[in-house]
Amino acid sequence: MQTLSVELGDRRYPIYIGAGLIGRPELYRPHIGASQVMIVTNETVAPLYLAPVRKALEGFAAAEVILPDGEQYKNLATLNRIFDELLGHRFSRRCTLIALGGGVIGDTAGFAAACYQRGVPFLQVPTTLLAQVDSSVGGKTGVNHPLGKNMIGAFYQPRCVIADTASLDTLPERELSAGIAEVIKYGLIRDPEFFLWLERHMEQLRQRDRVALAFAIERSCRNKAEVVAADELEAGQRALLNLGHTFGHAIETGMGYGEWLHGEAVAAGMCMAAHLSRRLGWLDESAETRIRALVERAGLPTDPPASIPPEGFLRLMAVDKKVLEGRLRLVLLRGIGDAVVTDAFDAGALDATLQHFSAAGL
Amino acid sequence: MQTLSVELGDRRYPIYIGAGLIGRPELYRPHIGASQVMIVTNETVAPLYLAPVRKALEGFAAAEVILPDGEQYKNLATLNRIFDELLGHRFSRRCTLIALGGGVIGDTAGFAAACYQRGVPFLQVPTTLLAQVDSSVGGKTGVNHPLGKNMIGAFYQPRCVIADTASLDTLPERELSAGIAEVIKYGLIRDPEFFLWLERHMEQLRQRDRVALAFAIERSCRNKAEVVAADELEAGQRALLNLGHTFGHAIETGMGYGEWLHGEAVAAGMCMAAHLSRRLGWLDESAETRIRALVERAGLPTDPPASIPPEGFLRLMAVDKKVLEGRLRLVLLRGIGDAVVTDAFDAGALDATLQHFSAAGL
Repeated sequence: MQTLSVELGDRRYPIYIGAGLIGRPELYRPHIGASQVMIVTNETVAPLYLAPVRKALEGFAAAEVILPDGEQYKNLATLNRIFDELLGHRFSRRCTLIALGGGVIGDTAGFAAACYQRGVPFLQVPTTLLAQVDSSVGGKTGVNHPLGKNMIGAFYQPRCVIADTASLDTLPERELSAGIAEVIKYGLIRDPEFFLWLERHMEQLRQRDRVALAFAIERSCRNKAEVVAADELEAGQRALLNLGHTFGHAIETGMGYGEWLHGEAVAAGMCMAAHLSRRLGWLDESAETRIRALVERAGLPTDPPASIPPEGFLRLMAVDKKVLEGRLRLVLLRGIGDAVVTDAFDAGALDATLQHFSAAGL
Repeated sequence: MQTLSVELGDRRYPIYIGAGLIGRPELYRPHIGASQVMIVTNETVAPLYLAPVRKALEGFAAAEVILPDGEQYKNLATLNRIFDELLGHRFSRRCTLIALGGGVIGDTAGFAAACYQRGVPFLQVPTTLLAQVDSSVGGKTGVNHPLGKNMIGAFYQPRCVIADTASLDTLPERELSAGIAEVIKYGLIRDPEFFLWLERHMEQLRQRDRVALAFAIERSCRNKAEVVAADELEAGQRALLNLGHTFGHAIETGMGYGEWLHGEAVAAGMCMAAHLSRRLGWLDESAETRIRALVERAGLPTDPPASIPPEGFLRLMAVDKKVLEGRLRLVLLRGIGDAVVTDAFDAGALDATLQHFSAAGL
């Protein structure tokens, strides 16, 4: 087991990474204050991992809420189901929530913990690669609104993250690839060595080589923890973590939540950001080619769906959280491992990029 | 105009108190970061005060959402209406919310500000006595759940509070009395001199004597600001502010939100707490008599509704946020101006208290 730390002063917390952690009581116990524990999970994850988690929590007054699976359920109605269960069980403000599942579960349960009785502790037990390398770390919680992704939420840190790499054995291949999208992102925005490593080890990752996966998860979490510790509330550099996400959120919202996996949308979004960066003369052609090649080898889309026209993208991107005073800001690339957040790009280049992908789209 | 300060480090903020403040642009401007401003108000307040607020905000891109009036609308559905408006107007995370109205508007709009895009600034412009002396100060925001009051929310501080005492001219008498309940509370929990002053000036307050009202508001806010500065997240002494509230919330939830005004329920709840304190031998009979007399002179109920039986109270109080590990904690009195939060009371005395009021009830 490896242990990383997210350094946030009195809200500092550990990330445990290793195989077989999900059933280890000693990882949970120090982070649970009182006896009432609510496990929030979904219909896919519950048959696989609810039993070992319940066993690890023996002696606690544990209950669970099992939600339907999918991004389309990451909304206020689902959030209210969690409140119904908590209040139905008369759980007090000393209760603890455990988010057992992928990014949707982590975001929804984390936001429920942020709001229930104005805030109760919660633990992240991510069971997808995407959740282990990205969404479970850093305290972004929230739900979607029909008009925009993650528009309702809170910055609220977990007490710990328990990332059991063995849980990836049961992950569908499509979900594995979706997670790799966020792994590639860390290489692109701040870790060129890691990008090189990914170019050399993509096949091992997709074959779920234990050593390669553990390395990629640890390296990703380390990158994320460093960024979050430096800028918890996204006043500055944390926004770099959104490479590909403004385009990606437009794809997710435009297609209807759940059609494209978040990681798939981010993958296409990163290729779009790379293309725009190259068009602006900020990134050379060989770098764009390498990025597209790696995304493709990860089993991910390099192009957005053709069904969203350029004007659709512009409309959907206009509600992005990075829009300030009507100016769209994007994360763009100056090189592999070198990203910037900027509104100083030519609008014509963005239009041309959207036109290009509209013609090339799936 | 008087200015108090809530001392919360980098979240420190001013409370402006005085007549005619609502239309003064210079009070708003320093606290609004960017041009988009959403005024959240209700159908009762909008015809009275929306125009002067809009005028004070000339030059900003201001919009408004006008909600129905009443505690029964303080819920997730109403919250979502605010998000609909914000997203419909494509308001960014640099937008500012202005809560214009009573406690329900302040709590709901404040919680919307806490959650929208994971947090945007907001200003409190309280137009009821209750909101001016209590709910607009201190950062408790949230909405109700059918199973419990204020169960979903956040601690989220406003950028400033603009308490225009002239807005109380239009306040219905019943609402004025409801606000006086929270004023009496400050005397009871920590300010015996203020309690004495209230005994001497209750008639002036009810006649809306400007000088008396301004004094009572300023003294109440000062008490609240001191408590909040010492214990923002209610780890300790802040819970004293809930005197009468555990009984009161049971009345509000049990009667259906909106039947009893919050302040009315708190008034009866304070009398119940005083009775239980006396029964425990902690408070002498003359003090209980003085408390009941002052509550009555404020035009407030001294007894709960008879329609909630003792077992109903116990069931409703069991979901209170102060319940920890199944132990009900109450704010009780050791004297006028001396309150404690405790679970160390005889359950039989609580039962006897509930029986007493069940027989005496309205």
